Amino acid sequence: MNTILLDHGSGGGLTSELISNLFARYFNNDILLQMGDSAILPNLNEQLAFTTDSYVVQPIFFPGGNIGKLAVCGTINDLAVSGAKPLYLSCGMIIEEGFSLDKLEEIVSTMAHEAAQAGVLLVTGDTKVVEKGACDQIFINTAGIGKVNPKHIEIVTGKNIIPGDKILLNGPIGNHGMAILKERKSLPFEAPLQTDCQALNKVINEMLSYTEQIHFMRDATRGGIATVLTEIAEQKNYGISIAEQQIPVDKSVAGFCEFLGFDPLYVANEGKFIAIVANGVADELIQIMKKYPGCEKSCIIGEVTEKSQGKAILQTSIGGRRYLQKLNGFQLPRIC
Amino acid sequence: MNTILLDHGSGGGLTSELISNLFARYFNNDILLQMGDSAILPNLNEQLAFTTDSYVVQPIFFPGGNIGKLAVCGTINDLAVSGAKPLYLSCGMIIEEGFSLDKLEEIVSTMAHEAAQAGVLLVTGDTKVVEKGACDQIFINTAGIGKVNPKHIEIVTGKNIIPGDKILLNGPIGNHGMAILKERKSLPFEAPLQTDCQALNKVINEMLSYTEQIHFMRDATRGGIATVLTEIAEQKNYGISIAEQQIPVDKSVAGFCEFLGFDPLYVANEGKFIAIVANGVADELIQIMKKYPGCEKSCIIGEVTEKSQGKAILQTSIGGRRYLQKLNGFQLPRIC
Repeated sequence: MNTILLDHGSGGGLTSELISNLFARYFNNDILLQMGDSAILPNLNEQLAFTTDSYVVQPIFFPGGNIGKLAVCGTINDLAVSGAKPLYLSCGMIIEEGFSLDKLEEIVSTMAHEAAQAGVLLVTGDTKVVEKGACDQIFINTAGIGKVNPKHIEIVTGKNIIPGDKILLNGPIGNHGMAILKERKSLPFEAPLQTDCQALNKVINEMLSYTEQIHFMRDATRGGIATVLTEIAEQKNYGISIAEQQIPVDKSVAGFCEFLGFDPLYVANEGKFIAIVANGVADELIQIMKKYPGCEKSCIIGEVTEKSQGKAILQTSIGGRRYLQKLNGFQLPRIC
Repeated sequence: MNTILLDHGSGGGLTSELISNLFARYFNNDILLQMGDSAILPNLNEQLAFTTDSYVVQPIFFPGGNIGKLAVCGTINDLAVSGAKPLYLSCGMIIEEGFSLDKLEEIVSTMAHEAAQAGVLLVTGDTKVVEKGACDQIFINTAGIGKVNPKHIEIVTGKNIIPGDKILLNGPIGNHGMAILKERKSLPFEAPLQTDCQALNKVINEMLSYTEQIHFMRDATRGGIATVLTEIAEQKNYGISIAEQQIPVDKSVAGFCEFLGFDPLYVANEGKFIAIVANGVADELIQIMKKYPGCEKSCIIGEVTEKSQGKAILQTSIGGRRYLQKLNGFQLPRIC
């Protein structure tokens, strides 16, 4: 039978088989192939960035991606927006007994492809199998290590943010969340909806090489760009002002959001990030960003202000003002 | 209601509350409290060890520990047996909607205690909540980073193993697996059974400081010591000979194994490791090991041989010989 058995997680013979026939075949690199209890990495001789995320998205396959693509790109992005160059990933899988080995291979192959594209090595892993009903198909955790140039060490804290800084966004929002929702509910909506899931380390790497004046970055996943902007306004106690009409939203996403009563500002993305940068470099950074696939619609959506301390404010298209807040209350579980 | 809601995993307000009221309170360190997308670590200026494990043990509380203790000690041990000094952990939790916040606090408090005892910092984390029925209470992934002295870089590969090397074990085997099984089945067995789960980095650190002649180490978790010894014999293509009567097994574990038809050599441990060391340092290392709590019964159980290439052989108490093999076929799912 071409399915995962409890024994694949026993630590014995079938576990070894799964590792050599599947994981080692796709994640083929010298560090992983040492097959020790830990992967031994080179001396990076630089400060490190370290992050983790578990992925429980449902459904596990959706237009434009699958749980494996999310697991690789999501953790790469958490490193990249911290000002780091992503280098190494771990992968911990929890699989339900009876899960299809073909589906597992498709997921693993996607992970290997995305990691290779991004120039990142998957070097260590673990597989657990739980009995039927004890988990929903497959959950994947990835942790990641990157190295951080001392010049970019304060990006993660936002310490250098000052009023007048510009707020950059790399393209249309809401695509991931709405694509998942459409898929999950099998809604009869004609408009094409696809996740924006992609690794952002290449575009961010070029931005970091260009200037030391990127003051903060964060990818806008769960909670959407509204949650990112609200949190940073609170943390820094400055105001943040963004213009609704500057924020790109694809027509299909806008229509679907309106139909279902969602606000795209709060919908999860998997390939979108906010950068807060010095005024003087904003336009040049936008030009760099626009060169990258998926970032063609990069734009300045607002700025950091002295007034409205601690608040993020949306200037609406019809001339009004709306305070944003963190996502509160249920929106979409298992979006990533 | 004092339970986990889907919203605790939304990335919004309740997620922030959970992080500040629970995780940040227990895992209180400057690196974690930066609260960025990644933890920023110092330049370690040494080779790194990187590992991950997911923990799905059932039941989540058991005599001598809980899933949180396993998650911290297990990953620390994977780093330590690789010859590394464990330094930093990540923690990814997947929690079922409706899970008790009190239980979560107990688990987190145990994790914080074990990490502090071992001198390791938990610096980054992630929490996902899935709907009722989509996972069995709580799963925890930890990844870990340690640094490896160049002198110990080949421990993970076993490259320096040669015939004549001694095989060391740090105490009685089978306690973890049998304690879990007894708890799970509510078996009416009088004998006290308790997990051996503990962090091994302190004892291993002293061993590494004493000598460069530790040629290999591995913790004997899933698959037990038989699986570790079989795998290393195959990999190195030497023989491994161990004496049954040298292998410590607690009376209660032996009785319980016999009653249920388990072989303690294949039962999972969470605080036991095999070390393969040069003959000349074996006795001194045993003396060092015996000083540590839980390692008082450390002993030499066998040696590496020229003959019986690729095989691990048990010299039985009654004078026979038995080839060991990797664990094959179902033994105990969700033991860790």
